[in-house]
Amino acid sequence: MTDVDSSSALPAVTARADGRTPDQLRPISITRGWSNQAEGSALIEFGNTRVLCTASLTVGVPRWLKGEGRGWVTAEYAMLPRATNTRSDRESVKGKIGGRTHEISRLIGRSLRSVIDTKALGENTIVLDCDVLQADGGTRTAAITGAFVALADSLHWAKEQKLIARSARPLTDTVAAVSVGIIDGVPMLDLPYVEDVRAETDMNVVVTGSGQFVEVQGTAEGAPFDRAELDALLDLALAGTAQLSQIQRDTLLETLGEVIRG
Amino acid sequence: MTDVDSSSALPAVTARADGRTPDQLRPISITRGWSNQAEGSALIEFGNTRVLCTASLTVGVPRWLKGEGRGWVTAEYAMLPRATNTRSDRESVKGKIGGRTHEISRLIGRSLRSVIDTKALGENTIVLDCDVLQADGGTRTAAITGAFVALADSLHWAKEQKLIARSARPLTDTVAAVSVGIIDGVPMLDLPYVEDVRAETDMNVVVTGSGQFVEVQGTAEGAPFDRAELDALLDLALAGTAQLSQIQRDTLLETLGEVIRG
Amino acid sequence: MTDVDSSSALPAVTARADGRTPDQLRPISITRGWSNQAEGSALIEFGNTRVLCTASLTVGVPRWLKGEGRGWVTAEYAMLPRATNTRSDRESVKGKIGGRTHEISRLIGRSLRSVIDTKALGENTIVLDCDVLQADGGTRTAAITGAFVALADSLHWAKEQKLIARSARPLTDTVAAVSVGIIDGVPMLDLPYVEDVRAETDMNVVVTGSGQFVEVQGTAEGAPFDRAELDALLDLALAGTAQLSQIQRDTLLETLGEVIRG
Amino acid sequence: MTDVDSSSALPAVTARADGRTPDQLRPISITRGWSNQAEGSALIEFGNTRVLCTASLTVGVPRWLKGEGRGWVTAEYAMLPRATNTRSDRESVKGKIGGRTHEISRLIGRSLRSVIDTKALGENTIVLDCDVLQADGGTRTAAITGAFVALADSLHWAKEQKLIARSARPLTDTVAAVSVGIIDGVPMLDLPYVEDVRAETDMNVVVTGSGQFVEVQGTAEGAPFDRAELDALLDLALAGTAQLSQIQRDTLLETLGEVIRG
Amino acid sequence: MTDVDSSSALPAVTARADGRTPDQLRPISITRGWSNQAEGSALIEFGNTRVLCTASLTVGVPRWLKGEGRGWVTAEYAMLPRATNTRSDRESVKGKIGGRTHEISRLIGRSLRSVIDTKALGENTIVLDCDVLQADGGTRTAAITGAFVALADSLHWAKEQKLIARSARPLTDTVAAVSVGIIDGVPMLDLPYVEDVRAETDMNVVVTGSGQFVEVQGTAEGAPFDRAELDALLDLALAGTAQLSQIQRDTLLETLGEVIRG
Amino acid sequence: MTDVDSSSALPAVTARADGRTPDQLRPISITRGWSNQAEGSALIEFGNTRVLCTASLTVGVPRWLKGEGRGWVTAEYAMLPRATNTRSDRESVKGKIGGRTHEISRLIGRSLRSVIDTKALGENTIVLDCDVLQADGGTRTAAITGAFVALADSLHWAKEQKLIARSARPLTDTVAAVSVGIIDGVPMLDLPYVEDVRAETDMNVVVTGSGQFVEVQGTAEGAPFDRAELDALLDLALAGTAQLSQIQRDTLLETLGEVIRG
Repeated sequence: MTDVDSSSALPAVTARADGRTPDQLRPISITRGWSNQAEGSALIEFGNTRVLCTASLTVGVPRWLKGEGRGWVTAEYAMLPRATNTRSDRESVKGKIGGRTHEISRLIGRSLRSVIDTKALGENTIVLDCDVLQADGGTRTAAITGAFVALADSLHWAKEQKLIARSARPLTDTVAAVSVGIIDGVPMLDLPYVEDVRAETDMNVVVTGSGQFVEVQGTAEGAPFDRAELDALLDLALAGTAQLSQIQRDTLLETLGEVIRG
Repeated sequence: MTDVDSSSALPAVTARADGRTPDQLRPISITRGWSNQAEGSALIEFGNTRVLCTASLTVGVPRWLKGEGRGWVTAEYAMLPRATNTRSDRESVKGKIGGRTHEISRLIGRSLRSVIDTKALGENTIVLDCDVLQADGGTRTAAITGAFVALADSLHWAKEQKLIARSARPLTDTVAAVSVGIIDGVPMLDLPYVEDVRAETDMNVVVTGSGQFVEVQGTAEGAPFDRAELDALLDLALAGTAQLSQIQRDTLLETLGEVIRG
Repeated sequence: MTDVDSSSALPAVTARADGRTPDQLRPISITRGWSNQAEGSALIEFGNTRVLCTASLTVGVPRWLKGEGRGWVTAEYAMLPRATNTRSDRESVKGKIGGRTHEISRLIGRSLRSVIDTKALGENTIVLDCDVLQADGGTRTAAITGAFVALADSLHWAKEQKLIARSARPLTDTVAAVSVGIIDGVPMLDLPYVEDVRAETDMNVVVTGSGQFVEVQGTAEGAPFDRAELDALLDLALAGTAQLSQIQRDTLLETLGEVIRG
Repeated sequence: MTDVDSSSALPAVTARADGRTPDQLRPISITRGWSNQAEGSALIEFGNTRVLCTASLTVGVPRWLKGEGRGWVTAEYAMLPRATNTRSDRESVKGKIGGRTHEISRLIGRSLRSVIDTKALGENTIVLDCDVLQADGGTRTAAITGAFVALADSLHWAKEQKLIARSARPLTDTVAAVSVGIIDGVPMLDLPYVEDVRAETDMNVVVTGSGQFVEVQGTAEGAPFDRAELDALLDLALAGTAQLSQIQRDTLLETLGEVIRG
Repeated sequence: MTDVDSSSALPAVTARADGRTPDQLRPISITRGWSNQAEGSALIEFGNTRVLCTASLTVGVPRWLKGEGRGWVTAEYAMLPRATNTRSDRESVKGKIGGRTHEISRLIGRSLRSVIDTKALGENTIVLDCDVLQADGGTRTAAITGAFVALADSLHWAKEQKLIARSARPLTDTVAAVSVGIIDGVPMLDLPYVEDVRAETDMNVVVTGSGQFVEVQGTAEGAPFDRAELDALLDLALAGTAQLSQIQRDTLLETLGEVIRG
Repeated sequence: MTDVDSSSALPAVTARADGRTPDQLRPISITRGWSNQAEGSALIEFGNTRVLCTASLTVGVPRWLKGEGRGWVTAEYAMLPRATNTRSDRESVKGKIGGRTHEISRLIGRSLRSVIDTKALGENTIVLDCDVLQADGGTRTAAITGAFVALADSLHWAKEQKLIARSARPLTDTVAAVSVGIIDGVPMLDLPYVEDVRAETDMNVVVTGSGQFVEVQGTAEGAPFDRAELDALLDLALAGTAQLSQIQRDTLLETLGEVIRG
């Protein structure tokens, strides 16, 4: 395979600690229905990163949306205090939520709403909780990818409970996310923590199953980046999210067909 | 087995939904080292209740303890928002920790400190985080029982790292906990949620491996209870915690011997 | 009296600083109606511990209880900043309530609810505020004992105001509380601060006027305790609360008869 | 007495509910040393208004004042939830201090600092806690008047403890406060709650023992007021605070002489 | 003018850094309509002090005022973090509002309500936001004076929008405020920061266009002050606010006539 | 100019309300030194959007950076409550900072740090406060562009104060930002509020003076976007930021040369 050839030509310094080629995802695992309490749930693993995603569906919508015949999807992201290598104080103990948590929660919510037809959802609210049990880079992208699975299952549950019309297809597409970055000048896919801290540029990309962009968030951590680097990162991200979309489809099987638009 | 005979004589109304006899624990499972980040960790399950316990050991002690040559052990308990049947708001979002959370965190901390020789621990601090991933009654007792395992492993790690003297035995005993309650007049061991809400009296008992009490917290949820009922509950709790202590020993194996006294 | 004989046989080290025998309460004083604003109030003193208890009765119940024809009783405990020997920061200034405050507020609320027939109370809410003006050990037990008096008076007021039916008897029993502890191996009743800090084991026991347990909260502050010690402490607590119940009855006189069942 | 004659000439509508003449204080009571924990304390009563004032003296000063050889005096005011006719939520429960509380705490602190020689106090800090146990108007003026007594006693204690030089006289004067207001066009002294809510203009005046102004805070609650009304109110306030100063001196007796300048 | 003569006779030490006479205001500037978003707005400058005042008028009143046919006016004061010479932390970041901010917000609100006929306002709410962009003393008095202009414009807007009856005159008078203080024994008008920190006594006075007092807040920062000093300060304040009232009228022109009572 | 020709060929529906061509910036104005308190300041206007940017430079760095010989640059963004068309509650009153505020503050800080040589800055800290006085879309991009000017001026001040070495050039480049979006299928530059709410895709791009990317944040508000649309938006953004960089240079003139690297 050409990919292998080209990657083997990279200089030794850019070899990845876990032996992957630059365009290779970490081992991905999705345990659907990990929780027996939620309407939908998935424990997703991107290598050593583990995120528990639950979908809580309740009838009704927030006050500002009442009477419009549309539903609402939102998300909350958090990390257990010892998900990381050194313990962080709990945000509940500090009495406030940090900027990073806020930012990621908002990103997850927007990403999922991009594939939801709120009319088809009806006046129901779904909250996606994404709790990082173990963190090794890419927690927000794992959260988006796993939350989609929990979301689909909660929609399926809602149809069985007749909270959503039999014919409704509230999903317009699938959605998945991956991180990419430039390390020692080489664009790489799906960065674990050790790579993430070394990356000059770091980008999180959210892409639909049909290959359209939902979010592109690129940040120059070290040196600013040029147009060619940006293009190379986008190429990698599109290839990575295509694989993740397929894994989501393989996980959800026929359930997906019942809640997604043709 | 005599247990079965005596329990089969109980009236039909007190039959347990999961088929257990009144003096039987739910299936107990402890996955040691579930997290690869913490100095010690355990995922403990009491039936459907699942608590992730991590031990974070750092050199140094809080300011008020400095220079006394003694260590400190504390704990924080929390529940994921969808650990329960209906979603609760996050305490981090509400900006404050509820009374129940505070109370249980303090209980876990006191329980673990009861078997710690803080001199032998030296000027190190261990924080036990007990996060309930799925709740089905008895979360605080599962947390104490699992946290002990994480604590023992972190002490072992500290010895390997030479943060604690080779000869030190910081643990004076093991400690485990179980809930007991009276349902329709019958004392029962290890209540799942459906039994917990029906209990007239509810008691959490923390006991050392040598069968001494560390905490006895009994509450009349419905009718007050008399001395005979209290005695019956204590009998059940002592039998239950003896089994849990054995499971802790079977889980920790020779590791325990290196960190526990005599 | 045999009690005196046996106590005089105790070794000198366990003599109490205030000259009491191990089974003797401190001087108890209840000033009923100390506040002219509340529907019921009592300034209770256990030795130097002084707690102002007020009962605020309002028509209506919290949202989650509406339409069930039942009332609600709850409690809030707090300490003035200089109730203690060194000043503590105000919880209002810190912007959050500490774990200990939460825990005690919940305990007082549960204790009072254990003797309330919420149906007979009707859709009324009573808040018991227990503010410690001076602290010398046993503040939570004094609070429970004093709050009961304020509660009874507020119920009487409610009957006079015809907020509660003339025939209703919302109290099912009286309730009082006392602390017990083991000091130098000797079980002792009603610990002041100097004894409390020395106690190996510390227990707060809430008991009804008819001698049934409402709460038993025992904690090994130092060494774990065995069954015999637990039994000795419970004996002391039952004797102490029996005396407190009598003081409550002597304080409330005929008022109690009008609001308590048979 | 001429006062009586002139006041009897007032129209019936301005008669005071408690029978006082417009220029008469309510019964004033100061119980010195009400608390056995604080370095100084006083329970002060202006009619039915009761405020517990405690002085907490500690060695050292806040960081921003270190090394200047001067001390610091500050105050915190608060109300028990049921000090008033209807219960207010606790500020600790709400998680923040209200504007009124802040404003009064600052006023009390400034008032006391106006009679303190911080050099003579040395590097010591005194916190005056003024907790309103029962409120019937004039709580801030009672708090200032009572806090002065607690402050004087804490200074005396500090001299006995040799924390302050034997020769030092940290007080430069006494300080007291009273409220005045215009009701139905008549200026009146020391308003209870029923008068306070009816006052068109309401003024709190803080005055030293030698009759100098420390604070003048006048507010038109209803109609703006003119210069003549302002003058009449100031006259009343000076007469009222002169009486309060005398009561403070009568309460403190020779103690005052040891801590106040010539 | 005699004033000029007497002031020129003052000793050199009291000469003002900016060359003003003791009874002279700083240059005053009011930019009406500075914001294109608010219903009324004014950027007011007292020398280098700059406050942006906006009036937000919405239909409806707070819950506690509903159905009474009356409106509500309130105010919020804040300072940008670098309005002052050294940067202050944001109150939003600290998570709570300081005492000073609370106190000033309340003062502004009361001052404006003193000239509002809430019946004529009808069930509308106006919030005055006074944000200090640059601070050089007298920010609260500039805020009151500028907020009045924004308030008047918002009332005019409301009449054009027919939210208020054509015939209504919701303002009963104009209102303005100024600071005065005693520096080196000399009473002075409108203190900039350098004078403010040196003042022995500092007073903020709020006065209506017809010369009646709305608020008089005098504080002895250094030495207490006597009746004669108080009188001199009040004289200065009345003269200063009379000039400010005229500037308000000159700014608002005929707009004022349409919203103020004859 | 061809640009004009091509834009005039656009369909009528995409005509901009303010008459601009799709690739045209709004009128840009930068008032340097608007504040006389800060070390650097700029009032920047992108059309009706007005942001006051101040730079506060203090000697020393946060604790976690001490002793490394490097400086720190951070930013805080906020909006006045009535900057927008309807009033928002103050974050200080709500007691917490919202997710959007956090996110933008972090973006501004990262953007400015991308052009700072922290070694050349030395152990100094600069806080950029960006307060939106009036909002009409693009507030975060205006804030970044204006904050750069304030930053440069504060660095110049620091050199004059000899807090930074004479030879140091702490800036490595200039940095500016602009928003771009797709409206009715047409990519457009620098969106005001009315366009922003209609945009299907909305992107904020931060670019250095040399045309390298610092941040690319694209969000599909409506439909996901494809690679061609992304490319068109990036083209527009590069052209817009090039113009903004020139305006920054024209504003700072020779000052810039003294603080930026050749």
